[in-house]
Amino acid sequence: MRLSAARELATFAARMQSNSPYRALREECLVANLELPRAGLVDLTFGNVSVADPENRVFAIKPSGLDYPRMSARDIVVLDFDGNVVEGKLRPSSDTPTHRYLYLHLRGIRSVVHTHSRCAVAFAQAGRDIPCLGTTHADYFRGAVPVTRAMTPAETGANYEWATGKVIVERFAKGGMNPFEVPAVLVRNHGPFAWGPFGAKAVETALALEIVADMALRTLSLSDAPAPLPAHLRDRHFLRKHGSTAYYGQPRA
Amino acid sequence: MRLSAARELATFAARMQSNSPYRALREECLVANLELPRAGLVDLTFGNVSVADPENRVFAIKPSGLDYPRMSARDIVVLDFDGNVVEGKLRPSSDTPTHRYLYLHLRGIRSVVHTHSRCAVAFAQAGRDIPCLGTTHADYFRGAVPVTRAMTPAETGANYEWATGKVIVERFAKGGMNPFEVPAVLVRNHGPFAWGPFGAKAVETALALEIVADMALRTLSLSDAPAPLPAHLRDRHFLRKHGSTAYYGQPRA
Amino acid sequence: MRLSAARELATFAARMQSNSPYRALREECLVANLELPRAGLVDLTFGNVSVADPENRVFAIKPSGLDYPRMSARDIVVLDFDGNVVEGKLRPSSDTPTHRYLYLHLRGIRSVVHTHSRCAVAFAQAGRDIPCLGTTHADYFRGAVPVTRAMTPAETGANYEWATGKVIVERFAKGGMNPFEVPAVLVRNHGPFAWGPFGAKAVETALALEIVADMALRTLSLSDAPAPLPAHLRDRHFLRKHGSTAYYGQPRA
Amino acid sequence: MRLSAARELATFAARMQSNSPYRALREECLVANLELPRAGLVDLTFGNVSVADPENRVFAIKPSGLDYPRMSARDIVVLDFDGNVVEGKLRPSSDTPTHRYLYLHLRGIRSVVHTHSRCAVAFAQAGRDIPCLGTTHADYFRGAVPVTRAMTPAETGANYEWATGKVIVERFAKGGMNPFEVPAVLVRNHGPFAWGPFGAKAVETALALEIVADMALRTLSLSDAPAPLPAHLRDRHFLRKHGSTAYYGQPRA
Repeated sequence: MRLSAARELATFAARMQSNSPYRALREECLVANLELPRAGLVDLTFGNVSVADPENRVFAIKPSGLDYPRMSARDIVVLDFDGNVVEGKLRPSSDTPTHRYLYLHLRGIRSVVHTHSRCAVAFAQAGRDIPCLGTTHADYFRGAVPVTRAMTPAETGANYEWATGKVIVERFAKGGMNPFEVPAVLVRNHGPFAWGPFGAKAVETALALEIVADMALRTLSLSDAPAPLPAHLRDRHFLRKHGSTAYYGQPRA
Repeated sequence: MRLSAARELATFAARMQSNSPYRALREECLVANLELPRAGLVDLTFGNVSVADPENRVFAIKPSGLDYPRMSARDIVVLDFDGNVVEGKLRPSSDTPTHRYLYLHLRGIRSVVHTHSRCAVAFAQAGRDIPCLGTTHADYFRGAVPVTRAMTPAETGANYEWATGKVIVERFAKGGMNPFEVPAVLVRNHGPFAWGPFGAKAVETALALEIVADMALRTLSLSDAPAPLPAHLRDRHFLRKHGSTAYYGQPRA
Repeated sequence: MRLSAARELATFAARMQSNSPYRALREECLVANLELPRAGLVDLTFGNVSVADPENRVFAIKPSGLDYPRMSARDIVVLDFDGNVVEGKLRPSSDTPTHRYLYLHLRGIRSVVHTHSRCAVAFAQAGRDIPCLGTTHADYFRGAVPVTRAMTPAETGANYEWATGKVIVERFAKGGMNPFEVPAVLVRNHGPFAWGPFGAKAVETALALEIVADMALRTLSLSDAPAPLPAHLRDRHFLRKHGSTAYYGQPRA
Repeated sequence: MRLSAARELATFAARMQSNSPYRALREECLVANLELPRAGLVDLTFGNVSVADPENRVFAIKPSGLDYPRMSARDIVVLDFDGNVVEGKLRPSSDTPTHRYLYLHLRGIRSVVHTHSRCAVAFAQAGRDIPCLGTTHADYFRGAVPVTRAMTPAETGANYEWATGKVIVERFAKGGMNPFEVPAVLVRNHGPFAWGPFGAKAVETALALEIVADMALRTLSLSDAPAPLPAHLRDRHFLRKHGSTAYYGQPRA
């Protein structure tokens, strides 16, 4: 109900600016952002979603520090892949350079979500990967969700948010991990980023990440060193949902 | 309110296909599935309920990967005990072979519930039984809720979900446990299954399981090795609610 | 809103039987019982409240195993202090003998609440008192909330619920504790009972108990042996709210 | 919705006493108090917000022990900085002297919030500072949130609440900490106080405090001695939101 109201609002606002070529992008971005507090993933204004149109090298993102209930599609900011605002009057999220870095370096993703969801943050603050302990995890991530290295003082200077994107991409490269098989990361001492092929899916992945972090925290309170999920079981679950052999859900029409 | 709305919807949808001999089964199955998110037992689309008519060797089950808010009685799939779809156009839950195995081997149960509820999953991921530590547990389960053994690579092949049913039944047989006295299990590294004489009761048992798992997690944070509930107290509570000497609740009319 | 609706329902139902001398008692009992799920203190049907009229040696109590949403004042059962039903057609709560024992031995209380609230149950299952660690605790309880001793096989026989009352009263006597200064107890391996001068206050105490149990669990995860609240601070807070020197809240008209 | 209803109620009540010079102060104070239960920061009646007008040396505060749903702007009490009631018929919060002490000694703050929020209380009960472990913390607090020393028996005498203010201010002075950079404290064995430039912001800070306490508790369950956030990263985040170099949020019009 709340979501459909949001959609209506978005539609209305978008009509106000119906000449814009970015109308659909802003609407998708608004709906995905509004889903964050609804899913319990953000407190206060911590968190943001962007949605990209990589062919046209643009992305839409939440404005900085705005309350979720007050947000409409008009408030969404559109930038090009060089970082220039191409539509919107508000200041974009302060995390915008991180999103932009990910679009430029993880080719093929169309949406990025950043939250401070509490269980994922706990792993980020402890500097620990979220281990793959069960099938819930493997349904979304083919292995542990990694934590990035500490950032240097130089990296936390003027281009801090851009450097945040760099350490994320570096972590996947050094770990030999595929960001399409593990579509999320923990930025050390900060919090999670997740990504995906469209806004709603990236938000779903961010929610799944928080759920598996919660399950892992509880598991670790029962067992200091729980055995990770065996690879055959992990892949069975991951491939039930992903790739050409998937058989979970309904076939696409 | 939500539940009665669901029931109305179910009634309406069922009328659309009023020739079906499985109308009541689908409705019961729909209502039980809709109860899962309402009780806080499922996140996203993790979880499913089936309801069987063992005399006619058929059971109704949730379709795979469908969002709960969108589901109607028309979407419920009916299969026979040999695994053939006898009614419904959607693909049944990917866990269908596990449900089918349980109906064939735990004679007398009429409903199976599978969730990824978080506290029960924590025990499954830690590879630990949920110990019987109090009367809340004993009101539902006459002893610890067991965890299954690890599955082999061969068992996670083509008949993975069928093999999941096998390890569940094996666990009860080897442990000398009665699945009517302990109507739930934890599949290792995966999550809980619960069962019962009808849909609503099986869902209630799945909820009770999550509650006692939560209580056990908190108890274990206070005491490394809490004493299990003495057998005389365990049986007192179990038998207050079950069997010919039960005196809890109202007498059946 | 929900509460006022409940009250209206109660009023209506009570009118149906307006000759009854127990109308007000049943209404107070209904309203207090309906508050339990609203306050998050009960799952499923675990929990019950009774309200007594000690001068007339009667008390009203929730019927056994009834769903909260379905309950009306007509369903509340009235018993005398000898345990005979004096009004009502349903079977009273299976915990009725415990309530009755408390009314007979803790003279002056007018309401008893029993729940399986999760954090309090954790202490009961671990066999540990809830230590008085802070002012929130001291605002309600002048010292630790005690856990009862294990019950013997004989005590869990035919008069199990009556014996439960006995071990509660024994715990206060042996510990030299005043049940009006510590108006709650944990029955070992079972759960909490709380009491007070009227239904709403006893429910408030049961809620305060769960809150301080939650706080104590979290405190114990930070510190193995936190210092208990010094007596001067404990008494300062307890006496801010209780007795002739109280200055918390508004003066009674 | 609930908030706007509260605001309307406040407006209405305020009109009843429209000659009062404290109308706006009472309204701001009411709205901020009503936000506490909405944000999940208070259980029962634990918690209070005051809002000051330092130029006129007056502050408005919640009445003692009143239920939040029943409160209107008429109930808010106004006192001068010497502690005399200047408007309102109810008894002010029993914590009023603590608020007054803070207004007198932390010059420049305009609102004080006190809660018993559960995770912050856990640190207060364990006698531990909340360490600065991540950027969520640094967005609000430039370093650990300190816990006060134990109060002496003399300090818990007649002027207990006034002495509470004293140990808070002493803690900042002895620690060489700036109460505008760390706008919150834990009173040992009691709970948190937070402050800020207006009611809504002080409540936001109290909520942020509970969130970072929750994250810290979970982090400490994963790592006994997690590294604190490096100073360069802490300051980067704090200064993103505070001071002349801030670039988070929208520019003020």
